[in-house]
Amino acid sequence: MADYKAPLRDMRFVLNEVFEADKLWSSLAGLQGAVDTETAEAILDECGKIASQVLAPINREGDEVGSTWNDGQVTAAPGFKEAYQTYVEAGLNGLGGNPDFGGMGMPKTLVGQVEEMIQGANMSFGLAPMLTAGACLSINAHGSQELKEKYLPNLYSGQWAGAMDLTEPHAGTDLGIIRTKATPNADGSFDVTGTKIFITWGEHDMAENIVHLVLAKTPDAPAGPKGISMFLVPKFLVNDDGSLGERNTMGCGSIEHKMGIKGSATCVMNYDGAKGWLVGEENKGLAAMFTMMNYERLGVGIQGLGAAEASYQNAVEYARDRLQSRAPTGAVNKDKAADPIIVHPDVRRMLLTQKAFTEGSRAFSTYVAKWLDIAKFTDNEDDRKHADAMLALLTPIAKAFLTDAALESAIAGQQVFGGHGFIREWGQEQYVRDIRITQIYEGTNGIQALDLMGRKVVANNGAFYRLFEQDVNDFIASHEGNEAASEFIEPLKAALENLTDLTQWVIDQAQKDANEVGAASVEYLHVFGYTALAYMWAKMALVAQGKDGEAFYKGKVATSRFYFKRLLPRYIGLTAAVRGGAEPLFELDDELFETA
Amino acid sequence: MADYKAPLRDMRFVLNEVFEADKLWSSLAGLQGAVDTETAEAILDECGKIASQVLAPINREGDEVGSTWNDGQVTAAPGFKEAYQTYVEAGLNGLGGNPDFGGMGMPKTLVGQVEEMIQGANMSFGLAPMLTAGACLSINAHGSQELKEKYLPNLYSGQWAGAMDLTEPHAGTDLGIIRTKATPNADGSFDVTGTKIFITWGEHDMAENIVHLVLAKTPDAPAGPKGISMFLVPKFLVNDDGSLGERNTMGCGSIEHKMGIKGSATCVMNYDGAKGWLVGEENKGLAAMFTMMNYERLGVGIQGLGAAEASYQNAVEYARDRLQSRAPTGAVNKDKAADPIIVHPDVRRMLLTQKAFTEGSRAFSTYVAKWLDIAKFTDNEDDRKHADAMLALLTPIAKAFLTDAALESAIAGQQVFGGHGFIREWGQEQYVRDIRITQIYEGTNGIQALDLMGRKVVANNGAFYRLFEQDVNDFIASHEGNEAASEFIEPLKAALENLTDLTQWVIDQAQKDANEVGAASVEYLHVFGYTALAYMWAKMALVAQGKDGEAFYKGKVATSRFYFKRLLPRYIGLTAAVRGGAEPLFELDDELFETA
Repeated sequence: MADYKAPLRDMRFVLNEVFEADKLWSSLAGLQGAVDTETAEAILDECGKIASQVLAPINREGDEVGSTWNDGQVTAAPGFKEAYQTYVEAGLNGLGGNPDFGGMGMPKTLVGQVEEMIQGANMSFGLAPMLTAGACLSINAHGSQELKEKYLPNLYSGQWAGAMDLTEPHAGTDLGIIRTKATPNADGSFDVTGTKIFITWGEHDMAENIVHLVLAKTPDAPAGPKGISMFLVPKFLVNDDGSLGERNTMGCGSIEHKMGIKGSATCVMNYDGAKGWLVGEENKGLAAMFTMMNYERLGVGIQGLGAAEASYQNAVEYARDRLQSRAPTGAVNKDKAADPIIVHPDVRRMLLTQKAFTEGSRAFSTYVAKWLDIAKFTDNEDDRKHADAMLALLTPIAKAFLTDAALESAIAGQQVFGGHGFIREWGQEQYVRDIRITQIYEGTNGIQALDLMGRKVVANNGAFYRLFEQDVNDFIASHEGNEAASEFIEPLKAALENLTDLTQWVIDQAQKDANEVGAASVEYLHVFGYTALAYMWAKMALVAQGKDGEAFYKGKVATSRFYFKRLLPRYIGLTAAVRGGAEPLFELDDELFETA
Repeated sequence: MADYKAPLRDMRFVLNEVFEADKLWSSLAGLQGAVDTETAEAILDECGKIASQVLAPINREGDEVGSTWNDGQVTAAPGFKEAYQTYVEAGLNGLGGNPDFGGMGMPKTLVGQVEEMIQGANMSFGLAPMLTAGACLSINAHGSQELKEKYLPNLYSGQWAGAMDLTEPHAGTDLGIIRTKATPNADGSFDVTGTKIFITWGEHDMAENIVHLVLAKTPDAPAGPKGISMFLVPKFLVNDDGSLGERNTMGCGSIEHKMGIKGSATCVMNYDGAKGWLVGEENKGLAAMFTMMNYERLGVGIQGLGAAEASYQNAVEYARDRLQSRAPTGAVNKDKAADPIIVHPDVRRMLLTQKAFTEGSRAFSTYVAKWLDIAKFTDNEDDRKHADAMLALLTPIAKAFLTDAALESAIAGQQVFGGHGFIREWGQEQYVRDIRITQIYEGTNGIQALDLMGRKVVANNGAFYRLFEQDVNDFIASHEGNEAASEFIEPLKAALENLTDLTQWVIDQAQKDANEVGAASVEYLHVFGYTALAYMWAKMALVAQGKDGEAFYKGKVATSRFYFKRLLPRYIGLTAAVRGGAEPLFELDDELFETA
């Protein structure tokens, strides 16, 4: 199994050369003096070392042994506790946090690269800081000054960890029907009672305290999603001096047996009149949750991308080492019994599929992170609104398309190994099992597609879409007359025109039949995703084309050509499938689905 | 978790109504009196009971506990030994075997349905009879009369089991470089020495003896695939009176830890001068192996289809039970807090994808089985040649397309469950892990595609392809002027024309560059697969359209419409990808694949 190598060269290319991060950062009022290229490189280097030297080596044992539950106590997988210490001591935990409370205030364009390395090296581990960061975002945006002061510094430092408690046994996608109750006490606190499931790292021994953000309903809350509130419920109550007090009346009832991410604990959390404090306004819990959603959903896309990169690195090493059969055009390795399998066209196709998806996804996640940074750090209201609209549109694509691409990529990376890919010791099958969850949690990819198609496209009659279209068209226009660019620009233009037509087609259909939105959604998201990655690959190829010398740039151009010739054309078939419409989904009566 | 229900109604539809098996069977000289519809139905009913009542209930524990190795002994997963007894006592083991040696001589069109139920209920278990049947095919076709008399009756009865030993640590796809040696003894036997890996059910406690067919090289064998011979190597030597003699000098060194099919033992087999007997001619071992390949590869396609059917049944039950959110067109379940998720267009899309792939695959596997039956049982030499050509062409598609469709289907079936799909107790993630191996073993799907594109299409300049084209065109012509058929016939015609053009395009490209074959292969196979399933869905829809009354027929037509509108169009994008050619696969230098 190959060692994990932090893809630092490519990250620098994306950050510095494609998105000119330095210019972006210095243009944003809220980021003045916070970060420059030099600081960024130092952080990336440091993180790369921790990822490859500390987190990757414990990834497989984490999968084999897992986190374990014993009488309410959860012991993190072997080595995780020590690795967590190393990670937080390096100061990586509060990287994106609010400096007023001990965070480092770094932009997401940078933090996203850090996340990719952590997740790529060890997804089960990476979930712990990811959940803490999510909890911090909500507390920072909606919590009272008191809550912020009491909780954020220790969360940013990693002394405490965070968890998000949304799902209940009967309520996943449909949070409007949750049953967990929160009844007010005289002192302003609430007693929280109920059962939450699928709580990632809801209980563990890596940090001193665990701060849960729990969705619950107050006694007189209206039915449905408008009656949900968010509560901060710590495992240990925190005294006024910041020291830990008594154990709250809550606990972990069990942990799940899962397909993957076995190193992490997925907890059933039982609340029995546990003390909690309202975060944000009563009945506005969903809004408080959605504050962190754009970050978390992009984060899940980055998880997929990170793990797919690790699978790719393994597959390349294997393809160059494994000798089997001869190249179609004649023996390459004349003195050996067979050629390395990388000579075979179909093996190259699989590797290039991984490479094109992963590097394209890295660029796209950075592109989305750019809008997050603008939305957060600009002092220009128009820019902020524009960035918010782009984020609303692009976040579901970043979550769903990047994770769908990651699964395909990991499956290809497993396939390169033949039979050995199915055997655990080679590591490739773990990436498939781990990545699979990224398509499911934080809103299934079907829900992402529905969000994109319904709320982000149809509901505003394509207004957000036109901003994206304009962005791509500006890029296309900037290369007008550039003959060398046309091999990328022309197919990008065709893909964009197709997407624009399809967008309008779905909007029109939806006026006639509400089912057309959900009928189109998943394949529409894929058409969008392939087009968005074409945009990224054109951007990258045109930056690389202008550079001489380093072979890296030649590789970029070649990979872009592969993307345009061999992956992008899929959108044509998917577009035709969308235009198949909703009718074929509703002709079959429900009972005729049953196997006869 | 839903109970496994044998899909008997659909099997009867495919066998009796779509392929008119009775007519087929009575037209074949070698099948006279062997089987009729009544016998077939009795066998299917009996098998359905064993599948759902005996094999399905032990499927999950088989995955959890697995088969276990202890000091060379392998204990089959819990309940497997007892289930094996029930299965063989029902007489199902020798169903397709040669009646001269105790087999039942049943046609593959029937046996394929039986296999689907066994594999659908429990893939790990199903591998045992599958491997035995494969070994029997080779012994029956190539073994001496003595070997046949000595081994076949006990293999058909199930008292003994079979195993196939091909792969070695350094030799999987490329069997030409195997190192296992066989040196001749004076008595006509051979001493076999070497190590084989990935030997499915190579050792276990379900049967008294295990008969291995081992590929090895004799001392003066030429290098490469033309120097491979096949040897029968029994775990226990068999005395002349048929009783078991001493233990052969061979053993199971360990079993693999795998992603799936954990109930089955995947063995490392060590041969240390073990006694073996040549099967077929010296140096013709690959040919002897390929005798069973068409059966085994179709069998793997059927495995995928069977497990995908089980996943589908689970998903439908869940989608009808799980209440979450409201239908886009307004509440259906007004008295409850939410609607069953089957009302959502995207959930229906996932379920229909499963249904369309599974039922289409069932029809296609039966279509391929028809050619196997003709090839085996006809007394007309022209018919046999024609059937052999069709088999050569269609077998890699049956193996690879059906298993690729099965994985997509099982992933969809898992996705329907949301977070619960990732949890082991719901069973859906096991189908994904189990099915994944079907894309890898028995020749990876990449190798299938290369076999199709290279040996079956380009090498004969499309001669086999034209037979398939003619078959579809005959079907199209038979519906000329049928207005009601045109919604299926027209898109089928377009898909076929596209495939014909693409076939010629690849043949032309291959003359210029040998890499074009492998560059086109996987996506070409998919274009072929979608077209072949369109043929099946058109056939099924037109049979169903003519029938009244039973809702089942209405469901068939509706599912066919879904296939044509929502799945078939994918071939358009895939065709464009094939036409992207080999060049984009070779522009990137090998070292530039490395992550920088």
